[in-house]
Amino acid sequence: MARRSVDVPALVESARAGAPRAVARLISLVEDGHETLREVMAALAPHAGSAWVIGLTGSPGVGKSTTTTALVGAFRQRGLRVGVLAVDPSSPFSGGALLGDRIRMQDHALDPEVYIRSMASRGHLGGLSWTTPQAIRVLDAAGCDVVLVETVGVGQSEVEIAGLADTSVVLLAPGMGDGIQAAKAGILEIGDVFVVNKADRDGADATVRDLRHMISLGDRSEPGLWRPPVVKTIAAQKVGIDEVMEALDKHRASASGNGELARRRERRAADEIESIALAALRSRFGTLGGREGLSALAREVVDGTLDPYAAADRLVETLGS
Amino acid sequence: MARRSVDVPALVESARAGAPRAVARLISLVEDGHETLREVMAALAPHAGSAWVIGLTGSPGVGKSTTTTALVGAFRQRGLRVGVLAVDPSSPFSGGALLGDRIRMQDHALDPEVYIRSMASRGHLGGLSWTTPQAIRVLDAAGCDVVLVETVGVGQSEVEIAGLADTSVVLLAPGMGDGIQAAKAGILEIGDVFVVNKADRDGADATVRDLRHMISLGDRSEPGLWRPPVVKTIAAQKVGIDEVMEALDKHRASASGNGELARRRERRAADEIESIALAALRSRFGTLGGREGLSALAREVVDGTLDPYAAADRLVETLGS
Repeated sequence: MARRSVDVPALVESARAGAPRAVARLISLVEDGHETLREVMAALAPHAGSAWVIGLTGSPGVGKSTTTTALVGAFRQRGLRVGVLAVDPSSPFSGGALLGDRIRMQDHALDPEVYIRSMASRGHLGGLSWTTPQAIRVLDAAGCDVVLVETVGVGQSEVEIAGLADTSVVLLAPGMGDGIQAAKAGILEIGDVFVVNKADRDGADATVRDLRHMISLGDRSEPGLWRPPVVKTIAAQKVGIDEVMEALDKHRASASGNGELARRRERRAADEIESIALAALRSRFGTLGGREGLSALAREVVDGTLDPYAAADRLVETLGS
Repeated sequence: MARRSVDVPALVESARAGAPRAVARLISLVEDGHETLREVMAALAPHAGSAWVIGLTGSPGVGKSTTTTALVGAFRQRGLRVGVLAVDPSSPFSGGALLGDRIRMQDHALDPEVYIRSMASRGHLGGLSWTTPQAIRVLDAAGCDVVLVETVGVGQSEVEIAGLADTSVVLLAPGMGDGIQAAKAGILEIGDVFVVNKADRDGADATVRDLRHMISLGDRSEPGLWRPPVVKTIAAQKVGIDEVMEALDKHRASASGNGELARRRERRAADEIESIALAALRSRFGTLGGREGLSALAREVVDGTLDPYAAADRLVETLGS
């Protein structure tokens, strides 16, 4: 396999030894869909699996970065190594270079035990479910005890990412019509812990009440099942962060105990495998030639002599031959 | 094939005869991914292919709906039947019921020759490239001469939809930092016609100048290739709409002449076929059991005994057997 001067074993070794530049380089390979990715993932796989993956999602303006920063501080006080992935769905670029990751969370800019990385979540087919788990694997294998994945909860895909974390935190703020927004975006279903940030603002208690009511309407009340708590915070002043940490710990214990953690990790891995497999199949479609090739079939559909389902059938059949 | 009381041939016949309720019902079947879709698309395919598909994209607030409404009016003056698809990427719901399509564009609410429909663009894998072309096919087969597809240009996927139209219109407004936004979102590459709306605002000329400059930096200047014009409008006052129509006509003539139209339609069909084929393969993954089934492979990846690429290889191999 060609490597374009990437020495994968050396890079993986450096990353595991805690070299931030090696970690950054590996995540760049993930983002670029680099040809060495297969080798990278094979090298990382045996060393991954111990990090606690916490998803944070919420609308723009609810205070995701501030809350993430506060949580990083709390985990650092426990002496844990922390990775942060900020996934930006609206940017087709890697945010890494643009936002200046280290500037973004100045509190932890110089802490060698904290890796902070912004990533674009490309809109491409399978892009999301692929790059995020792989970047998590890099941080995990590099010895992060906790990986915080921050996503803007604007679309179904982002919500899905957050829902695949070991523990999902949904952030809201008072007076943003967030209750309805939450219901609309489907984030009610994925929240393990709800945080109402900016709790010093008018309407915080109403937001908490609305949320609790909506949660109670869900079918979560079976015995043994986790009931998502609602915690009030003022993250900018570190108010309520201890309570969030307590809720996170409780969720982790619950999810470990009732098998939910194993199920989610399995689903995350299944999504990743599936994305890789579909991308491989897709590239095969592209190279199929002749009458059963994708372009020939597409021309028939354009002409109206073939319908798209029949065309898809033929394409799939050709794969097997 | 089970039909849940959907009489597809009768529905398609009604839609082709111009019954708005039949058209609406068919688009609902597309949105729902209804089990009769295969039959619906087979019935529609021979009747589709004559509509001119025009994509409109732009950031929130640039005046997409107002511009669409003005364009609908202009096409109606030509005596053409017009379909409008408003694709909302942020909503997991069908906007149809929520927004009240007919209220949204009041100018044309009672015109039986205008179909207006809001659609959610789900974040699911392949969802976008699948539902949009199918809904276009419904309107096309129902006799629409023009189908306007309005999307919010917030993500790569939306930009990709717009880029697959026969003619893509990119809307901007002065003073929104839109030049940089456009470059960031990749919409510069997909615009066939650029419209600077709200041209009575400060900075309109600067926006036009910036856009022309950025377009000139592109590699569009080869002979025979279309050079995207920049048109100023005040859509709310119908100012500049004639010029937009002229630009659209010119682009259509150019794209028909140089083969670009055929290429785009082929690409649109190829995307749709591919999405359907991948969804079919994906559902096969889900049902594979045993040691090579997706869940078993996912468990191995979680345990670190298998890397995701090797797992994907095994999954793909199993398909062929």
